[in-house]
Amino acid sequence: MARKNNPTQTVESIISVSAKLFIEKGYDKTSMQDIVAALGMSKGAIFHHFKSKEDIFNEVINRQFQYVEQTLYQWIDEMQELTAKEKLIKILEKNLNDQQAHSLDSVLSTQIQNPYFIVATMQEGVNKSAPIFAKIMREGKEDGSITTQFPDECAEIFFLLMNIWCDPVIFACDLSRLMGRLNFLQQILIKMGADIITDELIASYLKFVEKLYEREKI
Amino acid sequence: MARKNNPTQTVESIISVSAKLFIEKGYDKTSMQDIVAALGMSKGAIFHHFKSKEDIFNEVINRQFQYVEQTLYQWIDEMQELTAKEKLIKILEKNLNDQQAHSLDSVLSTQIQNPYFIVATMQEGVNKSAPIFAKIMREGKEDGSITTQFPDECAEIFFLLMNIWCDPVIFACDLSRLMGRLNFLQQILIKMGADIITDELIASYLKFVEKLYEREKI
Repeated sequence: MARKNNPTQTVESIISVSAKLFIEKGYDKTSMQDIVAALGMSKGAIFHHFKSKEDIFNEVINRQFQYVEQTLYQWIDEMQELTAKEKLIKILEKNLNDQQAHSLDSVLSTQIQNPYFIVATMQEGVNKSAPIFAKIMREGKEDGSITTQFPDECAEIFFLLMNIWCDPVIFACDLSRLMGRLNFLQQILIKMGADIITDELIASYLKFVEKLYEREKI
Repeated sequence: MARKNNPTQTVESIISVSAKLFIEKGYDKTSMQDIVAALGMSKGAIFHHFKSKEDIFNEVINRQFQYVEQTLYQWIDEMQELTAKEKLIKILEKNLNDQQAHSLDSVLSTQIQNPYFIVATMQEGVNKSAPIFAKIMREGKEDGSITTQFPDECAEIFFLLMNIWCDPVIFACDLSRLMGRLNFLQQILIKMGADIITDELIASYLKFVEKLYEREKI
C-alpha cells in the first residue's frame, strides 16, 4: 500500500539526514546519491523539494543560522536586568557552552573548510548577528557600560575576526598564536570602547580548541 | 599538416583565455565547453594539462597572487631609503594605482562573488602578504616609525579587514558606510601602533569604488 508522506516531514528528513552526512563525510564528498541512499526515498521525491545538493546545503545553513539568531534573542530576553556590557559578555559565554553542548565542534573541522560555508558564516555574522550586538552596544552608551562611538563597526569586526580569523581551521595556527590573536582582538575592542572579551572567555575558548586538536590527533 | 604546439604556450593560452572568460562571464557561468570553444583546441588537449575548470581557476588565482607578491618585492627593493612606515604607505598607494591600471576592478564585481575566490583571497592575504608587511613593521620598530608590539596581528587584520570587510561587493554597503569602515580600520591601526592608512589612501579608495558603482549602474 502506498505510504503518503507529509511534505513537511519529508523536507525535515531530507534536511536532517543531509546535515548528518555533510558533517560526517564533509560537503564535497557527499553526493546526491548518498543522500538518496541514506533517506531511502526516490530521487524524484527529493528533487520535488530541492533542485540540487547546493539547495539542501543552503537550507541546512539557513536553519543553523536561524537557530543561532533565535537563541540569541531568547537569551537577551532573559537578561533584562543586566547592563549592556554584562549582556554581551554573558551571551559570548553562553554561546561557547552551547557550541560545545551541540557538538558543533565536529562541524568546525569538516564543513567549515567548504568555502561556501565560510563565506556564508562571514556574511551571516556581519549582516545578521552584528546588528543585534550593535543595538546592545547603543544601549550600553546609555547605561554607561559601553563607550564606543562606533557600535556597528565594533560589532562587525568582532564577528569577522572572532568567527574567521580566530578559527584555527580556517587560519591554521598553534595555540600560542591563537592566544595572540584573541588577546589582540580583546585589546582592539578595549581601545575602541567595547570591552566585551573577558580573560575567562579567552581561556575557555582556548580550552575548547585544545580539546578539538587532541581529538583530531587521535 | 599537424601543428605542433609548445606545451608551455598551450598552458599559457588556456590560462589567459579562461581568465578572460571568468572575468567577462563570471566563474559559475563559464563552462568547460565555453573554454574549449574560445580556445579552438580539442577537449583532449586541455584535459591533458588541467583536470577540471576548478583546476584552471586555481592556476589563474595562483598566478594573480604570484604577480602581487613579485610586484610587492620589487617595490620594496626600490624603497631602500624610506622608513618602514613610508614604505608601507607607499606600497598601499602603488597597489591601488596598480589595481586601477590593470582593471582588476572588473574582476572585483564578478569573480569576487565566487566563495572559492573570496576564501583564497583571505588566506593569501593573511598567510602570504601579511608576513611581508609584518617584517617591514619589525624594521619600523628599529627606525622608530612603527611602534606596535604586535606586528603579525596588525598585518593580518589589516589584510583581512581591508580585502574582505572593506570590499563593498562582499559586504554590500554604500559609500558612507564604507568610509566608516575605512576610518575605523585607520583608528584601530593608529591605536595599535601601526599608523599606515593615510587620509589620502582612504580618499583614493573611495573614489575608486565610486567609479565602480557608477559603471555598474550604467
